[in-house]
Amino acid sequence: MSRARGRLGVAVVGAGYWGPNLIRNFRASEDWDLVAVCDLDTERAQRVLGERSGVAVTDSLAEVLAREDVDAVAIATPARTHHDIAARALRAGKHVVVEKPLADSGDHGRAMVDFAAEQGLVLMADHTYCYTPAVIKIRELIESGQLGEILFIDSVRINLGLVQPDVDVFWDLAPHDLSILDYILPGGLRPVGVSAQGADPLGAGKSCVGYLMMPLEGGAMAHVHVNWLSPTKIRQMVIGGSQRTLVWDDLNPQQRLSVYDRGVDLVQQSVDQVDRRAATVSYRLGDTWAPALPETEAIGGMVAEFASSIRTGRPSRTDGRAGLRVLSVLEAAGRSLAAQGVLVDAGASAVDRQAVS
Amino acid sequence: MSRARGRLGVAVVGAGYWGPNLIRNFRASEDWDLVAVCDLDTERAQRVLGERSGVAVTDSLAEVLAREDVDAVAIATPARTHHDIAARALRAGKHVVVEKPLADSGDHGRAMVDFAAEQGLVLMADHTYCYTPAVIKIRELIESGQLGEILFIDSVRINLGLVQPDVDVFWDLAPHDLSILDYILPGGLRPVGVSAQGADPLGAGKSCVGYLMMPLEGGAMAHVHVNWLSPTKIRQMVIGGSQRTLVWDDLNPQQRLSVYDRGVDLVQQSVDQVDRRAATVSYRLGDTWAPALPETEAIGGMVAEFASSIRTGRPSRTDGRAGLRVLSVLEAAGRSLAAQGVLVDAGASAVDRQAVS
Amino acid sequence: MSRARGRLGVAVVGAGYWGPNLIRNFRASEDWDLVAVCDLDTERAQRVLGERSGVAVTDSLAEVLAREDVDAVAIATPARTHHDIAARALRAGKHVVVEKPLADSGDHGRAMVDFAAEQGLVLMADHTYCYTPAVIKIRELIESGQLGEILFIDSVRINLGLVQPDVDVFWDLAPHDLSILDYILPGGLRPVGVSAQGADPLGAGKSCVGYLMMPLEGGAMAHVHVNWLSPTKIRQMVIGGSQRTLVWDDLNPQQRLSVYDRGVDLVQQSVDQVDRRAATVSYRLGDTWAPALPETEAIGGMVAEFASSIRTGRPSRTDGRAGLRVLSVLEAAGRSLAAQGVLVDAGASAVDRQAVS
Amino acid sequence: MSRARGRLGVAVVGAGYWGPNLIRNFRASEDWDLVAVCDLDTERAQRVLGERSGVAVTDSLAEVLAREDVDAVAIATPARTHHDIAARALRAGKHVVVEKPLADSGDHGRAMVDFAAEQGLVLMADHTYCYTPAVIKIRELIESGQLGEILFIDSVRINLGLVQPDVDVFWDLAPHDLSILDYILPGGLRPVGVSAQGADPLGAGKSCVGYLMMPLEGGAMAHVHVNWLSPTKIRQMVIGGSQRTLVWDDLNPQQRLSVYDRGVDLVQQSVDQVDRRAATVSYRLGDTWAPALPETEAIGGMVAEFASSIRTGRPSRTDGRAGLRVLSVLEAAGRSLAAQGVLVDAGASAVDRQAVS
Repeated sequence: MSRARGRLGVAVVGAGYWGPNLIRNFRASEDWDLVAVCDLDTERAQRVLGERSGVAVTDSLAEVLAREDVDAVAIATPARTHHDIAARALRAGKHVVVEKPLADSGDHGRAMVDFAAEQGLVLMADHTYCYTPAVIKIRELIESGQLGEILFIDSVRINLGLVQPDVDVFWDLAPHDLSILDYILPGGLRPVGVSAQGADPLGAGKSCVGYLMMPLEGGAMAHVHVNWLSPTKIRQMVIGGSQRTLVWDDLNPQQRLSVYDRGVDLVQQSVDQVDRRAATVSYRLGDTWAPALPETEAIGGMVAEFASSIRTGRPSRTDGRAGLRVLSVLEAAGRSLAAQGVLVDAGASAVDRQAVS
Repeated sequence: MSRARGRLGVAVVGAGYWGPNLIRNFRASEDWDLVAVCDLDTERAQRVLGERSGVAVTDSLAEVLAREDVDAVAIATPARTHHDIAARALRAGKHVVVEKPLADSGDHGRAMVDFAAEQGLVLMADHTYCYTPAVIKIRELIESGQLGEILFIDSVRINLGLVQPDVDVFWDLAPHDLSILDYILPGGLRPVGVSAQGADPLGAGKSCVGYLMMPLEGGAMAHVHVNWLSPTKIRQMVIGGSQRTLVWDDLNPQQRLSVYDRGVDLVQQSVDQVDRRAATVSYRLGDTWAPALPETEAIGGMVAEFASSIRTGRPSRTDGRAGLRVLSVLEAAGRSLAAQGVLVDAGASAVDRQAVS
Repeated sequence: MSRARGRLGVAVVGAGYWGPNLIRNFRASEDWDLVAVCDLDTERAQRVLGERSGVAVTDSLAEVLAREDVDAVAIATPARTHHDIAARALRAGKHVVVEKPLADSGDHGRAMVDFAAEQGLVLMADHTYCYTPAVIKIRELIESGQLGEILFIDSVRINLGLVQPDVDVFWDLAPHDLSILDYILPGGLRPVGVSAQGADPLGAGKSCVGYLMMPLEGGAMAHVHVNWLSPTKIRQMVIGGSQRTLVWDDLNPQQRLSVYDRGVDLVQQSVDQVDRRAATVSYRLGDTWAPALPETEAIGGMVAEFASSIRTGRPSRTDGRAGLRVLSVLEAAGRSLAAQGVLVDAGASAVDRQAVS
Repeated sequence: MSRARGRLGVAVVGAGYWGPNLIRNFRASEDWDLVAVCDLDTERAQRVLGERSGVAVTDSLAEVLAREDVDAVAIATPARTHHDIAARALRAGKHVVVEKPLADSGDHGRAMVDFAAEQGLVLMADHTYCYTPAVIKIRELIESGQLGEILFIDSVRINLGLVQPDVDVFWDLAPHDLSILDYILPGGLRPVGVSAQGADPLGAGKSCVGYLMMPLEGGAMAHVHVNWLSPTKIRQMVIGGSQRTLVWDDLNPQQRLSVYDRGVDLVQQSVDQVDRRAATVSYRLGDTWAPALPETEAIGGMVAEFASSIRTGRPSRTDGRAGLRVLSVLEAAGRSLAAQGVLVDAGASAVDRQAVS
C-alpha cells in the first residue's frame, strides 16, 4: 500500500448514535485522515462535523466507495444493514470495520468473513470494550495465570435503555459482554452450551430483560444479565479464579478493577465419613489490589488497531471471526429462548469450520 | 393461655451460628423470658450466655420439653434436624419457630405444618429478612400500588460464604430471597415455573454458584443469583414496576431503599408499519426518593410476632405455609438442575392442597 | 448589532488545557461561529481543530482583534495574562469572556470591570460550575426557601492536582467553590470575614493544602477545603439549612444531589434550669429526595449565556462583578495566611464601591 | 496481684449510652468477671443486663467500691463527673478506665493522672478507635515508613448528632480524631499550634460545627472537621505521606483502608529562572492496595489491654497521658475559638511537665 507511511483515508457511514464517536476518534488519530461522512440525513452529518469543516458529506454510498482517497470504511448503521454495506465496500476494495454486532445473523456474518478473506481485505468488528484499559488488563491477568483457573464469570449490564425497534435486549446489549468474554478467555468464547431466559413484561414483542448462562469447559459457568428496564445503571463483572478473584466495576472510575486475594480452596483428602467435606475446604482472606489504569479512550485504541492491521496484514485483535463467535452465541440464545431455556449447543464448531474454509 | 399478660417462656435449641442472635433478642424482649438453652456443647452455650447467668443450660432436649415454664421452642440447628426436633416439641405442646429453611424437604415441611395444625400450635418460620424495616416498606409500596404492576425482580446475594457440608448454595442462601419474595408479592411466591442453573467449579460435589429463574404470572420474571465464591459482597434487589422501580441495596445503610420515578411505557397505538414500534415507547426520567427507615433489629420484630401469634391465635406473618412455599421452589430448582435447567413446575398447587387438608 | 439574528463570531485565545473545551462548545453551539483560534503554539491549535478544518489559526492576537467577523473573544490563558489580553480585546470593541479566575489580582479585575462598563461591552467570567444542572438546581432550592435559612456550607475539592508554577492551591482550585457560593447564596458571596490556613509540606514555596473559613451573616459558616496532594478525588458540598440539608456529590452521576428532610430544631422555651437545653432540641429524620437533573454540558450553557448577554445587553449570570467578589475573597485569604490565619475583612464593600463607580 | 491468672473483677459505672457496650464486652471477655453495674437508674441497668442475670445492680458507688471482688472500675458517665468518680475509685484502690474524654478539663485530667501514679494504679482512657484493626494497621504503616514522611492529615467526622447539653461539638466528637492522631503519630499528638473555628447557626449557645487546624512539626498540617448538623454521615481520614497516601473510610466495611502509591515529588534542582518550579515536580500514579483487616470488635481489644496493663504493670496503649494530650488540644481549641481563630500554643510542654513530675 503506497500510503503505508502516510495517513490512511477513511469514510464513516452512519452519523447517528455511534457514528459521532467514530468521527471524533478518526479525526484525532495520527493514523487516519477522515475524508468523508455518509448519512441519508446529510444535515445531521454536517452538524456533527461542525461549520467550517473540510470533510466531505454525502448521502451516496456509491460516491464514497468511488473515492480513491478512501482506503477504509467504518460502518455505524443498524445491524440489519451491515452485511450489504460491508459487501459493497469489500467489493470496492475497501477495508471494513463494523459496529457491533458484526451482522444480524450468523449466515450474514460468515458471508462477510469469507468474502473479506477472498478479497484479502481487513474485516474487523468494533468491539470497543476490548480496547479499554480495564479489559486489556483483565486479559493480561488471566493470561499470566494470576487469577488461576477461571471458576465463574458473572456480568451485569443494566440500565434504562432505549427499547430498540428491531432487536431484543440480547442483540442490543449482550454483544458487549460476549465480545469481552471472547477477548479475555484463552482461546476465545467457546461455551459448551447456551441457555437463555427472557422476559417481556411490557408486551413490547421482544425480551427487555435477559439472562444468558453458558457452561464453559471444566465446570466453570459464565452468566450475563442484560436489562433495558432498570432505572439504576450497573456495569459489573465478577471473574472468580482459583487463585484470585477480580471485580470490574466500570462505573467506578477511581477503582475500576479490584483483584481480591481471597477465595475458597478444596483440599483433596481421603474422606472416610459422611459430612467430613466441610473440613476439607479452606479460605484465604488476603489483601485487595487495584492496578493503576491509564485514562485512554477505547475508540482511539480501536482505530489504531484497525490501521495497524491494514498496514501489517495481521488479523486485528477483534477480527471478523471474533465477531462470528459472538453471533454464534446470540443465535444459540435465540434457539434456547424458543425452547423455554433448554441448554442448546453454541455452534462453536460451525464458527471454526467456516473460519478455515 | 394463663400467661397471656405475662411473659412467655422460651427455650433456644442450638447455640451455634444463629442461636446466639436468637438468645440475645429473646433476652432483650419484653414479651419473652428466656428460660433455657439446649446444645450438645453445653460449654459453648454457657459461653454465649456469659458468667453469672441464671438461664438453664442443658444438652437434653427432653429436659427442655419437660419444663412447664417453656411455652415455646426456637430451633437453630442444621436443617436436616428441624423436622424431628419440631415434631418432638409440638408433641410436647410447645409452639415452635424454626430457622430457615423450614425443613430439609417439602415432605418434612408439610408434615410439620399439618402436625402443628392438628395440635393447634403455632409453627413459624424465622424468615428474618421479612422483619427488616426495608422489606416491610417494600411490601407496603407494592401493596399500595406505588410501583404499579411488577415487571421484573432481580435479586443478588453473593459473598465469600462457608461452603456447607450438607447443602448446596441454593438451600443455603436462596431461602432468604425466596422468603422475601413470598412476603412482598401479593398472594405470596407462586411462580409459573422454575429454572435453575448451578456450577460446581471447585468440584465440591454441589453447586457453589446458582441462578434461579422464575417466570411469574403476567409475563414478569423473578431471578435470583446466589454465590458462595464471590470475594465481594452484594445484597441487592431491583424491583421493576410499571409505575416506579425500586432498588434495595442492603449494604448501604445510609440509603437502603431508592424509589425511582423512571421507567418505560409502552403506548398502545395503531401501528401500520413495520419499525414504528420504537415511536410507541416513552420514557420517564423523574426524581428519586429514599424513604426514611427506622433502625430496628429484625430479629426483635420476629420474636414479637411469634409472641403475638401465640397470644392471638392468628397465623404469623411468616407462618409454616410461607416456609412451605419456599421449600416448594427449592425442590423445583433441584428438579430443574437435574434436567439441565429446563423449566419445571413449581408445585404451588401442592402447597395449597396440603394447606387446606 | 447587525448579526443579532445570525451567529456571533468568536475567537478563542489559548488552546492549552481549557481552550479545547471552549473550542468544542463554541463549535457545537447554534449561537456561535468559531472564527479563529490564537495560540503561540499554532501546531497545538491546529491539532485541536483537526485536519480539514476551516477555522483560522494564528499566533497573533492583533490579527484576531483586527477581524471584523470576530464579535467576541474567549480567553483561556494563564491568569497573569488575563488583564492585558482582555484590555486589548475590549479596546478593539470585542466582548470578552475570561476563564476563572477573572484576573490575578483585585486591582486588575476592577480595572477590567470598569473598562468594560465604559466601553459598553460584555465582560463575563467563565465560572463554568454555575452552568451545571446541579448548581442551577441548588440555587433554585435555596431561592425557593426549601432548605430554609442556610446554617453551614462545607465544600471539599481535593485530588492529585498539578502543582502550578505561579499560583497556590487557593488561586487554582478555590475559584470553583467561591464562584459556586457566589451564585447560590442570595445576594452573592459576602462573608463577614475570611480566615485561611495553608500547608506546604513539600517545600514547594506555596500552599498545596488549603482551608478557607468564611463566617457569613447570621451565624452561618462556609468552609472550603482545597488540596492538590490527595490521591483520592472528592468533590462534595454539604449545605445545611434550617429546613432541609443538601448534599452535592459531583462524582456520583447517578445521584449528584440529595436533599435530606432531616435536621435539628432548636425550640425556644423558657428554660429555668441549667442543663435543660438538650430537652429543647428536636430532630427530624425524614425522607431523602434526589431531583432528576438533565445531562447537559455546562460549557454549552455558558456560551449560550454569553451570547444572550451580548444580544440583550443584560448582565450575564456570572458577570465581571461576580468575578470580582471571588477575587476579593482570594485576596483576603492571602492576607489571612500571611497573618497566621487571623480573621480578616473580606473587602466586599470595596467590590461594591467599584461596582457603582 | 493474687488473681493474675484468674479473672479480674470489674464494675461498670453508668449504663446509659456507652455503658451497655462496655457491659457486653466485659461479659464476653475471658479476662474479666463483670461483678456489678452502678447507675442512678437501677431499672435501666437491670434492663441492660436482662432477666435472670446474676450481676449486682446498685445505685451506690460506695457499695461498688467497697466490694473486694471489684479490681477495676469502668466509668461511662458524663465527662464532668469523671474526675470525682475516678478519684474515689483510685482512693479505694481500684484501677480505672474512663470513657473519652478523660476529663472535662486539663486540670482535672492532670490531677487524675498524678493521683493514679501516686497510688500505683492503672489509669486508662477508653480511646476505643485505637483498638480498631484499621487504626492499628495505620499505625503500623506509618511506623514502618511505608507512607514516608507525613505531609497532611485531614479527618472528617460528621453526622446528625445529638446536640449535647453541656459540651460543644469539639468536646463531643473531636476526642475521637485527636486520640487517633495521638496513637498513629510517632511521639504522639504534639502540634506546634492549634487554630479553631466554630459555628453556632442554631443559636444553641455552643459550636455545632467545628474546624480544628493543627500545624505539625516539619510543615505538615492536621485538620479535623466535626459537625453535629450533617444529615449524611462521613467518617473519613486522609493521611498524605511523601511515599504513599492512605485513605480510611470507616463506613466502607468492604474496603476501610486504601493505600495509594500515588503522590507528588519535588525534585530539588538548581533553578535559575522564575517559573521553572513546575518542571521540578513529578507525579506517581501507581496501584492501590487495600490490606485485609480482621473483623474484631474494638472494645474487646480495649478491655484486654486494660487487663494486660493491670497484670504486667506496663502503661496501656491509651494511658492517662494520652488522654491528657487530647485534653490539651481541646483546651487550646477553646482559647483559639475565643480569639477568633488565632493560632495558639497547644500546651504540649505542660503535658510533659506534668507527666514527669
